[in-house]
Amino acid sequence: MKKTIVIASFISLLMAFTLPQQKQRIVFFGDSITQAGAKPGGYIMVLGDLLKQKGVQDQYELIGAGIGGNKAYDLYLRMEEDVLAKNPTTVVIWVGVNDVWHKKTSGTGTDADKFEKFYHAIIKKLQAKNIKVVICTPAAIGERTDFSNELDGDLNKYANIIRQIAQKNNVGLIDLRKTFLEYNLANNPENKDRNILTTDGVHLNEKGNQLVAEQMMKGLIK
Amino acid sequence: MKKTIVIASFISLLMAFTLPQQKQRIVFFGDSITQAGAKPGGYIMVLGDLLKQKGVQDQYELIGAGIGGNKAYDLYLRMEEDVLAKNPTTVVIWVGVNDVWHKKTSGTGTDADKFEKFYHAIIKKLQAKNIKVVICTPAAIGERTDFSNELDGDLNKYANIIRQIAQKNNVGLIDLRKTFLEYNLANNPENKDRNILTTDGVHLNEKGNQLVAEQMMKGLIK
Amino acid sequence: MKKTIVIASFISLLMAFTLPQQKQRIVFFGDSITQAGAKPGGYIMVLGDLLKQKGVQDQYELIGAGIGGNKAYDLYLRMEEDVLAKNPTTVVIWVGVNDVWHKKTSGTGTDADKFEKFYHAIIKKLQAKNIKVVICTPAAIGERTDFSNELDGDLNKYANIIRQIAQKNNVGLIDLRKTFLEYNLANNPENKDRNILTTDGVHLNEKGNQLVAEQMMKGLIK
Amino acid sequence: MKKTIVIASFISLLMAFTLPQQKQRIVFFGDSITQAGAKPGGYIMVLGDLLKQKGVQDQYELIGAGIGGNKAYDLYLRMEEDVLAKNPTTVVIWVGVNDVWHKKTSGTGTDADKFEKFYHAIIKKLQAKNIKVVICTPAAIGERTDFSNELDGDLNKYANIIRQIAQKNNVGLIDLRKTFLEYNLANNPENKDRNILTTDGVHLNEKGNQLVAEQMMKGLIK
Repeated sequence: MKKTIVIASFISLLMAFTLPQQKQRIVFFGDSITQAGAKPGGYIMVLGDLLKQKGVQDQYELIGAGIGGNKAYDLYLRMEEDVLAKNPTTVVIWVGVNDVWHKKTSGTGTDADKFEKFYHAIIKKLQAKNIKVVICTPAAIGERTDFSNELDGDLNKYANIIRQIAQKNNVGLIDLRKTFLEYNLANNPENKDRNILTTDGVHLNEKGNQLVAEQMMKGLIK
Repeated sequence: MKKTIVIASFISLLMAFTLPQQKQRIVFFGDSITQAGAKPGGYIMVLGDLLKQKGVQDQYELIGAGIGGNKAYDLYLRMEEDVLAKNPTTVVIWVGVNDVWHKKTSGTGTDADKFEKFYHAIIKKLQAKNIKVVICTPAAIGERTDFSNELDGDLNKYANIIRQIAQKNNVGLIDLRKTFLEYNLANNPENKDRNILTTDGVHLNEKGNQLVAEQMMKGLIK
Repeated sequence: MKKTIVIASFISLLMAFTLPQQKQRIVFFGDSITQAGAKPGGYIMVLGDLLKQKGVQDQYELIGAGIGGNKAYDLYLRMEEDVLAKNPTTVVIWVGVNDVWHKKTSGTGTDADKFEKFYHAIIKKLQAKNIKVVICTPAAIGERTDFSNELDGDLNKYANIIRQIAQKNNVGLIDLRKTFLEYNLANNPENKDRNILTTDGVHLNEKGNQLVAEQMMKGLIK
Repeated sequence: MKKTIVIASFISLLMAFTLPQQKQRIVFFGDSITQAGAKPGGYIMVLGDLLKQKGVQDQYELIGAGIGGNKAYDLYLRMEEDVLAKNPTTVVIWVGVNDVWHKKTSGTGTDADKFEKFYHAIIKKLQAKNIKVVICTPAAIGERTDFSNELDGDLNKYANIIRQIAQKNNVGLIDLRKTFLEYNLANNPENKDRNILTTDGVHLNEKGNQLVAEQMMKGLIK
């Protein structure tokens, strides 16, 4: 009897060192930026390349789950099918641009308190299944550096909310808004509203995809 | 052995006729109108009185689950706690005013397609638990009868969506918008925007609570 | 001396009967609908054809003064240059669609009370120069006949304001909203939102230009 | 002949020193902030006190012309009656908060290009009458210093427009937005959204009226 236990323990120990680790399954959950991120040249693809360069590509599976126009509550509605069903070990949430933007374009943005409520509800459901959560601030609606992009005030407000959510829920934060502002302060001397990291102030150009992939690398991979 | 079965069957038969039926638990799920509906003089209370007059009050339990400012997606977020946890046999959904109104007041209304998606998702979850669903059209934002209330066009559009949802999902419909328009055509000759069935164009006055209770009675009680 | 007076009077009399009357100069003052109205196939051109058919084309000069995106206050700002400078005998004002529409598309529509103020100010300036004023209700934003076009309520409200302005100021009214609704009730059995009188719910198709020209003919030409 | 010139010159010189100078008539043209500014404790009254302290109160007449809810185009509409009729030597224009704010609260803000057009038109009319023009940037909608007040982006944009208008038209600029930000950076360590210079993020408290009056003093009085 005792012998059996000893052998079983030894096998376990052996497996831990020699058998392949469980693959990390990372779902990127977001809006049109993430939808584009899963296409050739997109930030998820670039992140895949970075993993290859590091020789750790076999340890990770990257799954895009972005849908154009999505706000926080849209993510909540489709999280069973599009995220939980994929059995992820980690979920990266990147949402917020449309919650702010649609206030102006169609009168259908998201109130700050509702945004926070739905964001919390998503995190709670993921954490209840022991899924690791990493959240991102919205990067930009316009790249001007003097805070004169029309929606900068509201976007800063929602970025602050996300930073507080990260603290309160003890989840990882990738502060893309901070990263984008710093990059633009250094590289956008003409105070242009696009074409530095984005094509239209919101969606990523090649440099933007590169920068986001690098930040994801830092935030996700140890 | 046979004898036992005969006796058991007989008792069952007896119970069906003499024991109290299972009480119907009806949850009214909605916004500030329903929140007020559960207070003294509110339409849920008036409906309770109507049940008493009919002598059937013991067969029904009426439960208010309205929260001010709620839109379709807010109902979806809180339906586990506020509705399913109460184990209802029937749920009456009455929502839509804020989905339209907040477009104007704060830029945070609900797009028509998202409204429909969340509405369907709520119904699907209820029907999966064999809960009977009855849905209502939004009654009014302004009582003018010539369709010159500022939001009439959009409110008619969302009322049409709800009528179609009722058909598609084979659920009961209480068409309060139709009822309110008919009542106002008959009783609002001066084309006033309030004070016929509402205090402010939206929230029910005494006559409004009475009319809604009567319509609920017709739609819910056989 | 007396003889001279007699001759002069006779010549005046003669001129009144035989010399060409003063030409009527009609300026059409409005938004993109009127801007398109001055192009081939546009309602102003069709009205020109109708005048020819009646053989009275020499008595009228039709001048388009429409600019896309204009609201009531934009007309007020440019009325010196674009209208008064052209020395019109009659001005047809057709504005209102953008005052309503831009509330939704960019948060920059016009409050009802401001709309009325600017409209009055335009009329007052024209009447101070003895220019005849004729005003039109906005025709449509969407052609559905059950008042379920999203902006129907607000558009009906602004149409009512214009009808009241016509009465108060004793100016001619061409009630295009009424005309369009009646035409659609008779010719839009499928409750379509476009392609009956418009290409997109707002801008006129061939039939729409024809109908508007006919209404202008009735409202302007005796 | 020479003698005559000498005497005339002497009289001119004499008049300059002994005859009363023409009083400066300064009209403050704006919205609710300026409307309150003309009331006891308001910035115009405080400016009057500052003039007294300097002993130059007889050289200036200060006239309030603020109306609540006014946007750039409202100023244009009422400038004949409320400004030109008062025969001012200087007009201080302070407008912009509602042009931004009303986008959110009622969908009736002012597009940036229209804002600029009306602003230019006002200045042009004043300059045509040789009236000195001084213009101000909108101070604040919320006093947070990290640009997370909801409308900061748009307000910064409109402040930039006004700065450019000042340059292009060679008129004086009182940059209240800059002043308010600097003051808050020094005196609002808790990043509060009100109660530093305003009561509600927009309208001036005692300290705000004092600060504006001082800035007006610097910008207007030599």
